[in-house]
Amino acid sequence: MSTLHRTLALCLVSLAAVAARADEGMWTFDNPPRERWKQVYGFEPTKAWLDKVRLASVRFMDGGSGSFVSPDGLMLTNHHVGFQCIQNLSNETSDYVANGFYAASRDKEMPCPGYEVNVLTAMEDVTARLQAAVKPGSDDKAARDARTSESTRLQNECAKGGLRCDIVTLYQGGEYHLYRYKKYTDVRLVFAPEEQIAFFGGDPDNFTFPRHDVDIAFFRAYENGKPAQSAAYLPWSLAGAKQDELVFVSGNPGSTSRLRTMAELHGLRDYAVPVSLRFLERRLKLLNAYAGRGAEQGRRARSLMRNYENAQKAYVGRLKALQDQQAMGAKADAEQQLRGKAGDASPWDAIAAAQKKSNDRFLDVRYVTFNRAPQLLVLASQIVRYTAETRKPNEQRLPEYADAALPAVTNSVLSKAPLYDDFEELLLADWLAEAQEALGPNHPFVKATLGGRAPADVAKQAVANTKLKDVAARKGLLEGGPAAVQSSVDPMLVLARAIDPLNREVRRFYEDEVDAVILRAHEKIAQARWKVFGKTIHPDATFTLRLSYGTVKSFPAEGTQVAPFTTFHGLYDRWASWGGKEPWNLPKRYLDNKAALNLETPLNFVSTADIIGGNSGSPTINRAGEFVGIIFDGNIESLALDFYYSEEVARAVSVDSRGILEALRKVYGATGLADELARR
Amino acid sequence: MSTLHRTLALCLVSLAAVAARADEGMWTFDNPPRERWKQVYGFEPTKAWLDKVRLASVRFMDGGSGSFVSPDGLMLTNHHVGFQCIQNLSNETSDYVANGFYAASRDKEMPCPGYEVNVLTAMEDVTARLQAAVKPGSDDKAARDARTSESTRLQNECAKGGLRCDIVTLYQGGEYHLYRYKKYTDVRLVFAPEEQIAFFGGDPDNFTFPRHDVDIAFFRAYENGKPAQSAAYLPWSLAGAKQDELVFVSGNPGSTSRLRTMAELHGLRDYAVPVSLRFLERRLKLLNAYAGRGAEQGRRARSLMRNYENAQKAYVGRLKALQDQQAMGAKADAEQQLRGKAGDASPWDAIAAAQKKSNDRFLDVRYVTFNRAPQLLVLASQIVRYTAETRKPNEQRLPEYADAALPAVTNSVLSKAPLYDDFEELLLADWLAEAQEALGPNHPFVKATLGGRAPADVAKQAVANTKLKDVAARKGLLEGGPAAVQSSVDPMLVLARAIDPLNREVRRFYEDEVDAVILRAHEKIAQARWKVFGKTIHPDATFTLRLSYGTVKSFPAEGTQVAPFTTFHGLYDRWASWGGKEPWNLPKRYLDNKAALNLETPLNFVSTADIIGGNSGSPTINRAGEFVGIIFDGNIESLALDFYYSEEVARAVSVDSRGILEALRKVYGATGLADELARR
Repeated sequence: MSTLHRTLALCLVSLAAVAARADEGMWTFDNPPRERWKQVYGFEPTKAWLDKVRLASVRFMDGGSGSFVSPDGLMLTNHHVGFQCIQNLSNETSDYVANGFYAASRDKEMPCPGYEVNVLTAMEDVTARLQAAVKPGSDDKAARDARTSESTRLQNECAKGGLRCDIVTLYQGGEYHLYRYKKYTDVRLVFAPEEQIAFFGGDPDNFTFPRHDVDIAFFRAYENGKPAQSAAYLPWSLAGAKQDELVFVSGNPGSTSRLRTMAELHGLRDYAVPVSLRFLERRLKLLNAYAGRGAEQGRRARSLMRNYENAQKAYVGRLKALQDQQAMGAKADAEQQLRGKAGDASPWDAIAAAQKKSNDRFLDVRYVTFNRAPQLLVLASQIVRYTAETRKPNEQRLPEYADAALPAVTNSVLSKAPLYDDFEELLLADWLAEAQEALGPNHPFVKATLGGRAPADVAKQAVANTKLKDVAARKGLLEGGPAAVQSSVDPMLVLARAIDPLNREVRRFYEDEVDAVILRAHEKIAQARWKVFGKTIHPDATFTLRLSYGTVKSFPAEGTQVAPFTTFHGLYDRWASWGGKEPWNLPKRYLDNKAALNLETPLNFVSTADIIGGNSGSPTINRAGEFVGIIFDGNIESLALDFYYSEEVARAVSVDSRGILEALRKVYGATGLADELARR
Repeated sequence: MSTLHRTLALCLVSLAAVAARADEGMWTFDNPPRERWKQVYGFEPTKAWLDKVRLASVRFMDGGSGSFVSPDGLMLTNHHVGFQCIQNLSNETSDYVANGFYAASRDKEMPCPGYEVNVLTAMEDVTARLQAAVKPGSDDKAARDARTSESTRLQNECAKGGLRCDIVTLYQGGEYHLYRYKKYTDVRLVFAPEEQIAFFGGDPDNFTFPRHDVDIAFFRAYENGKPAQSAAYLPWSLAGAKQDELVFVSGNPGSTSRLRTMAELHGLRDYAVPVSLRFLERRLKLLNAYAGRGAEQGRRARSLMRNYENAQKAYVGRLKALQDQQAMGAKADAEQQLRGKAGDASPWDAIAAAQKKSNDRFLDVRYVTFNRAPQLLVLASQIVRYTAETRKPNEQRLPEYADAALPAVTNSVLSKAPLYDDFEELLLADWLAEAQEALGPNHPFVKATLGGRAPADVAKQAVANTKLKDVAARKGLLEGGPAAVQSSVDPMLVLARAIDPLNREVRRFYEDEVDAVILRAHEKIAQARWKVFGKTIHPDATFTLRLSYGTVKSFPAEGTQVAPFTTFHGLYDRWASWGGKEPWNLPKRYLDNKAALNLETPLNFVSTADIIGGNSGSPTINRAGEFVGIIFDGNIESLALDFYYSEEVARAVSVDSRGILEALRKVYGATGLADELARR
């Protein structure tokens, strides 16, 4: 290719990238893309519109989003976001996961233990205050520490009013904002469908479209024992969205890497993602073999297998995106441009050097940090940590053991979730064996855990002889403090204690030699970007409230166009065309009440809105500020949104407001709930 | 990659290729894969089973397949196979294409002008007789001529009994068989659905699955004015096929290239297919712009656009298959093996040399041979040829102007199909301009057609001043003979006359320097293959009767598994989810009668049977010899079957016997027809 041709090709790529970025953005509510909305869609939201949407949006601390859909504190999120509560409320006689749940009156609504829901009430730019805390001439580590302690001070000061207060790092360190949240801690379950219809199609249909899932769960926020008054709520749209209609998504995307440098993305592409995929493939093979031994083994392995299958699809989608030469080439070109215009390439070089250090230690860090370790070992390590950390002053502890975070830790350590010896042993043996194979016999981690013994022997002995399977024993250790834990000969605790110093070393290495360097460099890159482009881009996702937008739009797949909607007809087609075979079987209610349904009612739909994990449960909203759907997934191509926006094929998937109402009335006879939604 | 690794990789590829060839084969009825059927499926057909299936299979000379489905001569084929008759029988008041047709009693069944249907009654190996006709030491051309005249002699001798007799070249010249057919020439239309449901989803859904088409048309064969007695017919299965069930497809696959050498396939990959795709892209752009000018222009362009869109998808699928490195690598390895074992590489070298000659002239041949030329120019060339050829003795003519073939030519020349000046001019100007751009101003074709003028001027003048738009004028010229045609100053005839000598030269070049050489070489390769492998492979498709088989089977697509069946629910889902937008609109009958349908009835299904174009209309048959479906398409991946078999993703698509019966009874009220099918 001649130079001219190459230049032309690059221009075409850049243009394509610009055009494809059309509806990009997970925007903070203080900086929405007003100009573009006005120019392209003729949409000019008032302050009241933005405020209402923001205050009607809720964050589930378990890791999802939701919205108020009535003035009486009624909230809607996904079944898979509210799953933990639905499962916790189930017991031998009432399996709400399998059979669903409906509180026909408010007194039947059931409190979810440990649930917390947040509403973002205020945002304040505190960048200048945090920068002022850093003494001139500080090195990266000192700068990070100074900022951290000023952050903690600001948060604590703010939290005195009973609010949740978080310092949010935006633009990889370009800005810091103090976010104030109203907290709801009395959250009650109102309605859940059967898991089988929430997750119809199971792992095969996960991350795909056409789709036919009723992935919803209703909760209600209470205050002082009464339903919370939620003046800001999203009225239910009876008309739903139409093809090509502009829609908004308000929710809490968890994490994206769009402003990461190419060095960081190559680290993901060449280390983090492939290594995770290898692990998942190995572990799923093991779990499949175990599950194949019998029904009970299948049941024991089910939850972990589902988790891993989901992760596997997600990583495959991400790897494909990272290997897309055209899209990644466009990103590399953009980086080169900014680097040139910034006049100082040192931040990019600093990141590349730090990333290289990270890459070089990538393999051992997985094991030392208990990444996807078996449950008993995780419990042991939490006990070791808890007892060691809680004797320190609050501000000197690892953040996940600060006072505010302790309830979550004890909740986890004292969980009554059953543990099975054979299953724990299987997983521990394989985890240790994998580490041995990956790191070699002389690696400190391998020496510390195996000490020359075979992984299977270590696992067998540790699982057989540990007392940690007993919740009371775990409780006793937490209460016994460091002396009890340090002197214990419980083999699982011995294993966790052996790993702990390695973990602390790795953690220090990462925090000081990688993260602090990268953070400081990104601050500089962000400043350079403001200078060159102005503040015309959105920050990467941080599991804080964002507003995305796009249009309801079909996409090309398998040689044809996928329709933007599915209907109940599609649900019954997929069921019947598989002969009702799992995971395309239907709950009995759907068979019994089929004749009552208007089968042409839209069930799921896709849009080009810019979303990522964490957006699960986000409301899809029309111009009028009405609820037209609820995000519950993206297609496999949408995983590219972690790294770059594309509206060619990437799509966000919602349950349709019309389908939800039709199911509530005709399948579940949930008249009271449906009336609460449909009243205007 | 080290040598060892490369070798290992090759082995894996070869093994994969072997495994994937599992259910390969378009078998002649005299050599079915009995051993494999027995071993893998426990199926051992009797002679009676094979005879019944063969005699129940019909070939539509228009280019499709079909079957007898009642003892009273009732035949089923695809709507798109029977389209010409349905269109010919339509008129201003009765548009059977748009509205469908049903003869509620036999006296309402309408004869299809010019239709001929064949039943294969006997096959005879005449290889030795044809080889004996070739004098030892003959060159390729002389050998070809000797065989051709012996073929003609055998065919004529056989045809004296009123049969259709064809010499069929199998294994690219490895064998010659004399096929005897019973002919039915009184073929009447019994039932046709609306084109919209036969081709539901239009071009977007073409070559895809899931699919929801009722692509069927019923005809009846008559003899002596009475329904033919078809003792061999396929009883209708009311139970249909099940997932993973063994099924057979009996039909007339048109053409495949599996036994072609790599040199020939590379010619397709690098010349024929990409050049065709470039042409189609250019022409579709032109047609889209023309159709965009108004409704009438859209109507005029519609049929050609559909034809080109279909061809475009087909070529894209083929190109992808030819570019598949793993599959093509396996083919190359297999060729190397055979070449090594044959002990004589000269046939492969001869083919490569002939193919190179063909490649070198590929571009100009397209134009000189009127490939996809506009209709008026084609008519002109047929008139020029007809008058020149018919004055020669029958055996010296170009075969397409032999006495037996003349009715087809006059039928075409005297067709009353409307011609539109603006449309013809548009296409002629573009065809000439494209030739000028591709061949350059000094090419003999460009000089002969343009003579220095602009393509647009030549087209404008030729279309404006030709008399050939008038059927009577065309008739007059056919009757006027060569003198009238050679002396005519009609500009379209002048254009056709200018191209004619170039065409004859190219034709001679191809026949003598390419085809004759390749045919002779393939004879030798076939002999070598018999020696090495025995007669364990099937011959390439030749639009003669073959038996394929496979299982009803889902396939992976877009991250999930496509169900093996679709149902009426799926049809209504696709309609409703597009909001009834064309091409997903439904005929009124389907809206009016929806409530009467059992929507869970299977409508279409896929199998791994080995098919290709020409199989359209083939019955899908179960072990019991019952009709369970009718082939009407393959998915886009099935186009690879032109070059190699694969059951990973390639699938044949059938209409389900249950769906047909449900539609006949509930949508069309075609009770008499449904009863004729369902009686046993």
